[in-house]
Amino acid sequence: MPNHWSTSRLAALIQAKQSYLCVGLDNQINDLPPGFPATPQGLMAYSKLVIELTRPYAIAYKFNTAFYEEMGSVGWSILEELVYFAGEEVFRIADAKRGDIGNTAQAYARAFFESMNADAVTVNPYMGRDSIEPFLDYPGKYCIALGITSNPGASDIQKKLMKNGEAVYEYICSLLVEWGSPEQLMLVVGATQSDELARLRKRIPHHFFLVPGVGTQGGNLESVLNFGKNVNEGIIINASRGINFAWKSSELTVEQSIINSAQAYSAHFNPRE
Amino acid sequence: MPNHWSTSRLAALIQAKQSYLCVGLDNQINDLPPGFPATPQGLMAYSKLVIELTRPYAIAYKFNTAFYEEMGSVGWSILEELVYFAGEEVFRIADAKRGDIGNTAQAYARAFFESMNADAVTVNPYMGRDSIEPFLDYPGKYCIALGITSNPGASDIQKKLMKNGEAVYEYICSLLVEWGSPEQLMLVVGATQSDELARLRKRIPHHFFLVPGVGTQGGNLESVLNFGKNVNEGIIINASRGINFAWKSSELTVEQSIINSAQAYSAHFNPRE
Repeated sequence: MPNHWSTSRLAALIQAKQSYLCVGLDNQINDLPPGFPATPQGLMAYSKLVIELTRPYAIAYKFNTAFYEEMGSVGWSILEELVYFAGEEVFRIADAKRGDIGNTAQAYARAFFESMNADAVTVNPYMGRDSIEPFLDYPGKYCIALGITSNPGASDIQKKLMKNGEAVYEYICSLLVEWGSPEQLMLVVGATQSDELARLRKRIPHHFFLVPGVGTQGGNLESVLNFGKNVNEGIIINASRGINFAWKSSELTVEQSIINSAQAYSAHFNPRE
Repeated sequence: MPNHWSTSRLAALIQAKQSYLCVGLDNQINDLPPGFPATPQGLMAYSKLVIELTRPYAIAYKFNTAFYEEMGSVGWSILEELVYFAGEEVFRIADAKRGDIGNTAQAYARAFFESMNADAVTVNPYMGRDSIEPFLDYPGKYCIALGITSNPGASDIQKKLMKNGEAVYEYICSLLVEWGSPEQLMLVVGATQSDELARLRKRIPHHFFLVPGVGTQGGNLESVLNFGKNVNEGIIINASRGINFAWKSSELTVEQSIINSAQAYSAHFNPRE
């Protein structure tokens, strides 16, 4: 039986865990805490520890494919095992930002939804409709397309104005929500873009937003909570370095630093506050 | 000693082989010719056969990551082995279309330029400058950014007009060639976009164009040759399905169908005709 996700299942999970937290698993071999060897095995062990310790607080896990691909095929094996290890009780996002012509996009959809069995994959919409559609054809799985990203480069293209007066990102988001329903598609909306987040939520009431960029990147949590939520909760807030690297700025044990940081994010994210 | 590419080395290779041909290795397990089992081993064997037989005609090989990722970690191993098998005498392009925030883009650059040892990687520029820059920092290797793509979806966003009257793709290309010199950056320009190809070549005289979309996708070879070349040759023309699937529409042996199709593309591409 396939693991079927929906906006209502996500909302129920958020309410049950009292948390919007998605934990990003972006560890690197050369940046593991003391006690974990700088090897693929060390990375696997630390990543599994982060997953185990954050389970009470996380509704989702996000796996950034770049940090596995840089280890080659060994890295891809670790990625597969971690997605499996996270399990079907949480929403597992392959943060891959793929985008290509139709027949290639189909192969990417098979890669992430069938071979890897992720529940969602992030996608770059710049190549247009045929680059998105193959990801919409999997009931119970989600295509998460770039809305507006959290990085400085978002100003280079995404925020520039089109002839009709809209910003490029606004125009693309309006296409995306025509192509995919709230049960097929979500949008990536960077936490650092609080004005744009608010504008998008007004125009797009029903789709979930995946919000990266809190913590290290400087996104404002309060704005995300004030402007991002919708009647179905509607937001998944990602923290990566803020949790994986919490040991670097803590006097506590590695384990306790993970727990405390996840708990702190989760408390901030409390939907009943 | 690293394998160092430059526009002049590429031009010399094009002139020596009398060919602009890049062979795309986009095979799939379930679409191999008779005699090749529908397994990863069968795919590896057929892909190596295509590489061996096309060596006299190909200046470059392009590996579409999607068709390897759909096999999971086994596929990534095959991809690594095929890039190695193609060897340092040809220009090896990882067609990955990656694009992400700065620290993630750095990890992708390490994945393709260091771990996989490809000579070039295709990149999606939609996330802006910090998503491109890490790929420019490898002397002798190339960042190949999307200029205008060959697919129908190119009309959805890339060809739309900006407030300043330029199309989105023109604006992005003008940024890209400011960010990366002809020794760092190339542009993907779809063969199906002949008007846009001609416009881009007028504005961007010195950068190489990687041109996919001839053959199955319907791109016009004559236009590409007439409008794409520059004083340093300046074009790499990719054919994938037209060569890998030539056996499907041929009475010849599989081997001869590969050779004939590569030779035919190469003859068309003859720089001295």
